[in-house]
Amino acid sequence: MDGMENGGRKDTMKIANERKLRGSDVLLRMLALIATLIAIIIVNVSEETELVPVIIAPGLPPLHVPATAKWKYSSAFVYFLVVNAIACAYAVVSLILSMLKLAGTDGIAMVVFVFDLIMAALLFSGNGAAGAMGVVAYRGNEHVRWEKVCYIFEKYCRYNTAAGAVSLVGATAFLVLVILTALHLRKR
Amino acid sequence: MDGMENGGRKDTMKIANERKLRGSDVLLRMLALIATLIAIIIVNVSEETELVPVIIAPGLPPLHVPATAKWKYSSAFVYFLVVNAIACAYAVVSLILSMLKLAGTDGIAMVVFVFDLIMAALLFSGNGAAGAMGVVAYRGNEHVRWEKVCYIFEKYCRYNTAAGAVSLVGATAFLVLVILTALHLRKR
Repeated sequence: MDGMENGGRKDTMKIANERKLRGSDVLLRMLALIATLIAIIIVNVSEETELVPVIIAPGLPPLHVPATAKWKYSSAFVYFLVVNAIACAYAVVSLILSMLKLAGTDGIAMVVFVFDLIMAALLFSGNGAAGAMGVVAYRGNEHVRWEKVCYIFEKYCRYNTAAGAVSLVGATAFLVLVILTALHLRKR
Repeated sequence: MDGMENGGRKDTMKIANERKLRGSDVLLRMLALIATLIAIIIVNVSEETELVPVIIAPGLPPLHVPATAKWKYSSAFVYFLVVNAIACAYAVVSLILSMLKLAGTDGIAMVVFVFDLIMAALLFSGNGAAGAMGVVAYRGNEHVRWEKVCYIFEKYCRYNTAAGAVSLVGATAFLVLVILTALHLRKR
């Protein structure tokens, strides 16, 4: 009887653990979805046009020419946007799989695990790329005479810094999902 | 008897699988170690000094001034070097753990798993940062008037492209290690 009771308690605990895990799984996928979606939106609305003084000839007053900053003009931000879009789309699909409890079967769970990992890798590389451009945009690089531009395109830089931070939350969510899956596999 | 034979066969297969896994584990850690080490060395020897023509005054012939390109001058490459150094040091430690079969115990295995994952994330972000700088160095960005510099510092750019490629091999090795650990946990 004692053995049965113990077995019953174990089963109850196992079911409770499973529920907790599924709950965290769904929440983390939602977080990843929302974070990458917000990053995409912020990058898209960050476009900014400013009047930039251009010296045509010495002695003459500078001419003010409109200049625009947008993500399309930087390969790093194009890459950042693409990886966030891929991760966001995948977050939707994997969230549906998780809610329909389809990811519980062994084969699909492993595929989801590998894709979670790839999404984290992609997002971290995208964040690295955007971050590197951000540092140069804020501080410039005098050694190669790349001038800082964030004092002109203040809104653009502020928005994209926020996009990077939010995307990093999404990347971390995928990392935590990978760790949770491993812990789950270990406990079985 | 049949049951015992089956059990015996299962055990033999399990041991064979364990050996294969440990072998791949050691090989992948060696690969990650060598790849990140080579990346560090390449970045360190990539320094290049060239004579760059500078126009002092219109009408006068340009003055040729020596200019140096090295990793210290770019935050992205400093970051790239730091993450490769961290990953390389960790690869040494984890390789020792793996060879001494210490990573077989459950707790340590999980810690190693999490660190493998973090190393992959760090390396991918470092590669993203270096890659983004590489694209600007090769192609420039006319929108913010950042001029391309790789036609001057050819060796520097070629070396750092190679460093990025090698580091990406190390990053992928850590990703594969994470997947292998998950497959191992699943099979138990």
